[in-house]
Amino acid sequence: MTITARPADRLLDAVRGGAQIYDLGRLLTIGMPQSPNHPPFWLSMPRRHGDGVRADGGSAANDLLVMGTHVGTHVDALAHVSHEGRLYGGADAADAQVGGRFADLGVHTVAPMLRRGVLLDVPAVLGEDCPPGYEITPADLDAAVRRQGTPVGPGDVALVRSGWGRLFDHEDRTRYVGFESGVPGVSTAGAQWLAAREVHAAGADTIAFERLRPGEGHASLPAHRVLIVEHGVYLVEAMALDELARDEVYEFTFIMAPLPIFGATGSPVRPLAVVARG
Amino acid sequence: MTITARPADRLLDAVRGGAQIYDLGRLLTIGMPQSPNHPPFWLSMPRRHGDGVRADGGSAANDLLVMGTHVGTHVDALAHVSHEGRLYGGADAADAQVGGRFADLGVHTVAPMLRRGVLLDVPAVLGEDCPPGYEITPADLDAAVRRQGTPVGPGDVALVRSGWGRLFDHEDRTRYVGFESGVPGVSTAGAQWLAAREVHAAGADTIAFERLRPGEGHASLPAHRVLIVEHGVYLVEAMALDELARDEVYEFTFIMAPLPIFGATGSPVRPLAVVARG
Amino acid sequence: MTITARPADRLLDAVRGGAQIYDLGRLLTIGMPQSPNHPPFWLSMPRRHGDGVRADGGSAANDLLVMGTHVGTHVDALAHVSHEGRLYGGADAADAQVGGRFADLGVHTVAPMLRRGVLLDVPAVLGEDCPPGYEITPADLDAAVRRQGTPVGPGDVALVRSGWGRLFDHEDRTRYVGFESGVPGVSTAGAQWLAAREVHAAGADTIAFERLRPGEGHASLPAHRVLIVEHGVYLVEAMALDELARDEVYEFTFIMAPLPIFGATGSPVRPLAVVARG
Amino acid sequence: MTITARPADRLLDAVRGGAQIYDLGRLLTIGMPQSPNHPPFWLSMPRRHGDGVRADGGSAANDLLVMGTHVGTHVDALAHVSHEGRLYGGADAADAQVGGRFADLGVHTVAPMLRRGVLLDVPAVLGEDCPPGYEITPADLDAAVRRQGTPVGPGDVALVRSGWGRLFDHEDRTRYVGFESGVPGVSTAGAQWLAAREVHAAGADTIAFERLRPGEGHASLPAHRVLIVEHGVYLVEAMALDELARDEVYEFTFIMAPLPIFGATGSPVRPLAVVARG
Repeated sequence: MTITARPADRLLDAVRGGAQIYDLGRLLTIGMPQSPNHPPFWLSMPRRHGDGVRADGGSAANDLLVMGTHVGTHVDALAHVSHEGRLYGGADAADAQVGGRFADLGVHTVAPMLRRGVLLDVPAVLGEDCPPGYEITPADLDAAVRRQGTPVGPGDVALVRSGWGRLFDHEDRTRYVGFESGVPGVSTAGAQWLAAREVHAAGADTIAFERLRPGEGHASLPAHRVLIVEHGVYLVEAMALDELARDEVYEFTFIMAPLPIFGATGSPVRPLAVVARG
Repeated sequence: MTITARPADRLLDAVRGGAQIYDLGRLLTIGMPQSPNHPPFWLSMPRRHGDGVRADGGSAANDLLVMGTHVGTHVDALAHVSHEGRLYGGADAADAQVGGRFADLGVHTVAPMLRRGVLLDVPAVLGEDCPPGYEITPADLDAAVRRQGTPVGPGDVALVRSGWGRLFDHEDRTRYVGFESGVPGVSTAGAQWLAAREVHAAGADTIAFERLRPGEGHASLPAHRVLIVEHGVYLVEAMALDELARDEVYEFTFIMAPLPIFGATGSPVRPLAVVARG
Repeated sequence: MTITARPADRLLDAVRGGAQIYDLGRLLTIGMPQSPNHPPFWLSMPRRHGDGVRADGGSAANDLLVMGTHVGTHVDALAHVSHEGRLYGGADAADAQVGGRFADLGVHTVAPMLRRGVLLDVPAVLGEDCPPGYEITPADLDAAVRRQGTPVGPGDVALVRSGWGRLFDHEDRTRYVGFESGVPGVSTAGAQWLAAREVHAAGADTIAFERLRPGEGHASLPAHRVLIVEHGVYLVEAMALDELARDEVYEFTFIMAPLPIFGATGSPVRPLAVVARG
Repeated sequence: MTITARPADRLLDAVRGGAQIYDLGRLLTIGMPQSPNHPPFWLSMPRRHGDGVRADGGSAANDLLVMGTHVGTHVDALAHVSHEGRLYGGADAADAQVGGRFADLGVHTVAPMLRRGVLLDVPAVLGEDCPPGYEITPADLDAAVRRQGTPVGPGDVALVRSGWGRLFDHEDRTRYVGFESGVPGVSTAGAQWLAAREVHAAGADTIAFERLRPGEGHASLPAHRVLIVEHGVYLVEAMALDELARDEVYEFTFIMAPLPIFGATGSPVRPLAVVARG
């Protein structure tokens, strides 16, 4: 009845050999910058220690969490965006959402990711952080690949760094949102560059992944259309990418497990980049 | 300026060689079984496709999420439980919670986990699923280790399977909660067994990790005291462990990244068990 | 510049002469009985006294409130119910709800009520509380009017008491909801009786105003159709009517001011019945 | 068995004779101005018409409501504010809040109000709306009483109009909050003036009832201390008072029924001012 021969596990061996984990998720705090389109993050403790102490001296504190699914570092499910009434794959958006949840393209259908990840460090190419409203072009992406020696291929997760993430903790919470200033990122051409490489997911250090023009907010989101609706590429937003850039970690194992919220359009996530060199 | 020599990454090589991912998180759905001590999971779409179509034909749907942090598959932060007014490490619980968040032991302090995991399949030892209210003993845990050939050691994540998880999707949502029937799990002695092996975290396929006596609910939670308060071991509850048991996967890479909710006592999670053999 | 001649105010004179207020609203508490169709009531204090004390010694505590709008004592706006895709007045329900709020028939359009109210005390006619699932008939309503000497007329608010309200505080929270047992109330004929009298609103001491058949829950709600969709009569549910019956107060000034939640389908309320005799 | 002699009801007679209702509550809308200290108002429809149509053709839409209890027009319960650890009446604030609700001074203990109300129209005295940060003095209040001919007395509800309410619907939502500019209102002396007249409650057309100095926000709230902690006077904030002033309605029946949220520190309300002259 005893099981004896345990096969070697290459992954576990690698982990045991020592792996460095980069945390790409932002702290979730009340008042953090987020789009006014989404319900704000809020947290409260219904029960604190001492509210109800059990006979054995034990006490438990707990929380009530309220938030949109597109606040903090989060992933967009394919159900999040439609174009002319159609979702990725051609489904009718109005039909798909009957009942108030997306059974087919909701975030619960996003498989956990354990994939090759590539950071595309655009500021390292430009020699400075991307200016507000700057459109990251295919030429910029090509230059980043060349500089880093890390081509992007099918199934990869590509993280486009603009440098805008430095504003996430700015005391003026509107700075990161960037409605007035605009926000840097890829637009149609950059999205097509990513789609052509058949990435599985793409991420950025900004609130909406793509370039926002000054004063226009989310009035037009062509990269969402190209990547989500046309190519079924998941988008990850509000990522913390500065440590990867600082350490010049351009290729890594990308790990992300969205919460399986049945039928939802997105999920908060805490993505990881892991390296195990030695 | 070009970076050329990319060092080999053992982890990434293992991932590319093919890895099987077991999803240990439960679907988050309205009406799923949960403890009445915690705010119920609820989800709603403020915006559906068609509510506001942009000039370019695009439309976005989003969500409002309300939930306790101890519902669905979730991790308990060390701040969750106190004993006689003290948290793990001896901090005064009343002082630690001033401001409504735990700056020191909140769930944002739980580092992402990429560790050896071990499933302890108790039903395989007993020859049947653990009965309601059954206390899993050190002898049961020893027997599982012997049967599987997988000792538990320092830094590991130990997942104790009782078989109770089969009730998670039962149409009577009170069955899984098990107030009347009791729920199987370790109690003081089993918790000490785990603590003695210096596990980093422990999980179970039940709602409160530990054994609940029939009709008593959460009136006494000694395993929480031993593991969380006395030894600083994180607990993961309401896990889906049946697929691991079915496939006789007893050792694996355990991956879990709790949401970094600043100051909270817990977080919903989607833990993974990964194997890369062959 | 001084204004001198203040006209007499009959209402204020009546109030000053002494008025007795009956509180027809239920306490809102965590765990109170409510329909599983609606988001549960939950409350938590983000800030308690002592969390942040100002330099002057002051401190403020506050709350986070989460709830459906059809929990506790509440009013149904006309937007709440549709029949074959049409709302009261014939508007297309699908069109009316675009944007996620009902600009036209939302609860913000319910004017505050200061009207004649009539209690129809059916148990006083039957000689006992209405049995579970009992249909209150036009004959019952006629008998109540005769017994009390209080005809119901245009613009009145009619409150139909079944006696079921005694279960609101029952320790088994499912009793009041009454899915298995059924719940007493008017059905189609009783609703037509009310509509024929051109009442402005109607209320009851039950969770869904109308009779629910045993084991059927909300599978069919003909009185909602008749009153809300066909006649534009507001419904008030889960009222506390026992004190009025005890004191044999059958006619009164009914006062209710729903929260003006823009576009919502209902609102929690605290209705009052006031008498000023003497 | 028939009841015949119905006594005359002076209140009901007054209502039937024709009463004019002034609605003093603000519309509750997503994005309305509110203090960042409190959880934002948010609303979403979990179920829309068509999501689930019953066999008989009926369909119901509903809502999920999330909000602080001090947003929109709202009343402060006595539990809301403490001074040096004491609540009104001397109770220890820390003790009173154990369990996360105030059993004694929570908003459920605020009796419905049906009382004489007086508007104190300060802009009519000043000849202009109160400037930002203006302190309304006892002399201003005396002048308003003289001008209007409406003394304030024991048990009354006094509503202090500053004119600031005109900013509630300003497209810049920060204007009404007034952190930078300051907000007009009474301060210590004005609060003492009200307390000396033994008012039951006091209200204003501003977000915090009392004067806020420019750039200081809620750093010091002496009028809250005087009225709530020292004298047990309820405060009503963010009221709509302009229509009363426009119509020169200075004395009226004030009606307000806070939601009986067990243990909460406040409640959204829709207060009414009613006149029945003629």
